[in-house]
Amino acid sequence: MAVTQRSAKTVWNGDLASGSGTLNGGSGAISDLGVTWAARTEESGGKTSPEELIASAHSSCYAMAFSNVLSGAGHAPDSLEVTATVDLEPNPDGGVMVTRSALNVVGKVSGLSEDQFAEYAKQGEQGCPISNLIRNGAKIELSASLK
Amino acid sequence: MAVTQRSAKTVWNGDLASGSGTLNGGSGAISDLGVTWAARTEESGGKTSPEELIASAHSSCYAMAFSNVLSGAGHAPDSLEVTATVDLEPNPDGGVMVTRSALNVVGKVSGLSEDQFAEYAKQGEQGCPISNLIRNGAKIELSASLK
Repeated sequence: MAVTQRSAKTVWNGDLASGSGTLNGGSGAISDLGVTWAARTEESGGKTSPEELIASAHSSCYAMAFSNVLSGAGHAPDSLEVTATVDLEPNPDGGVMVTRSALNVVGKVSGLSEDQFAEYAKQGEQGCPISNLIRNGAKIELSASLK
Repeated sequence: MAVTQRSAKTVWNGDLASGSGTLNGGSGAISDLGVTWAARTEESGGKTSPEELIASAHSSCYAMAFSNVLSGAGHAPDSLEVTATVDLEPNPDGGVMVTRSALNVVGKVSGLSEDQFAEYAKQGEQGCPISNLIRNGAKIELSASLK
């Protein structure tokens, strides 16, 4: 596998409190989603947010990673229901920070005890690329220009 | 602000190579999006992926953080176009890993030189909660049970 790149674009107008943005993913699956600070930190009002998008990434990635561990052990899952819940909290140094992503998985898998399932679940978490991003980080680059 | 929680759920059926998942976000804005390993690592075929979702989170969060820095300096932006591009690469230790998120911002802002804009762009990046998640990490929790 070569490097796979995926991108997304947000167009934002105005300041943080009264402004708003529109998000599009490069694949087309995420299309013209509205984002605001109020919907991010108060009631969502049907709008997504950076934290919901992190939860979406973590949930979908962990489902793949865990399915791979289980099928490697001869127990491909009938189903895995993976919920990720992401916390955004005030940062003692100012602003806000993401403090936690909690994964919950409920599986329908033949031939495993609860203990075996839980052990494979941990292996899946260790191999999950988004878990490892949250654990180990990645490089951030920035380029900026005026229109 | 109290702790804000946002969640998402993926239901996955089957093994990694031939299985597939369906993703829903708690807000309702992300609804029944399909995910597969092939769409994640080869052509997207109109499907989102964990990496596109990370790019979406980073892009939308950075737009908010930068707008806040600019308006705090008296230069609320007419528009910020923020693209995030996330790289997924083979991991030398096996599997794959997220190695980079590259932000590009093009702004329409009155009264700033290119140098001033670039300096505020860096300040925005330092304050962006998703940048700080990628930089500093967060706690991961896991619970697993069989149906």
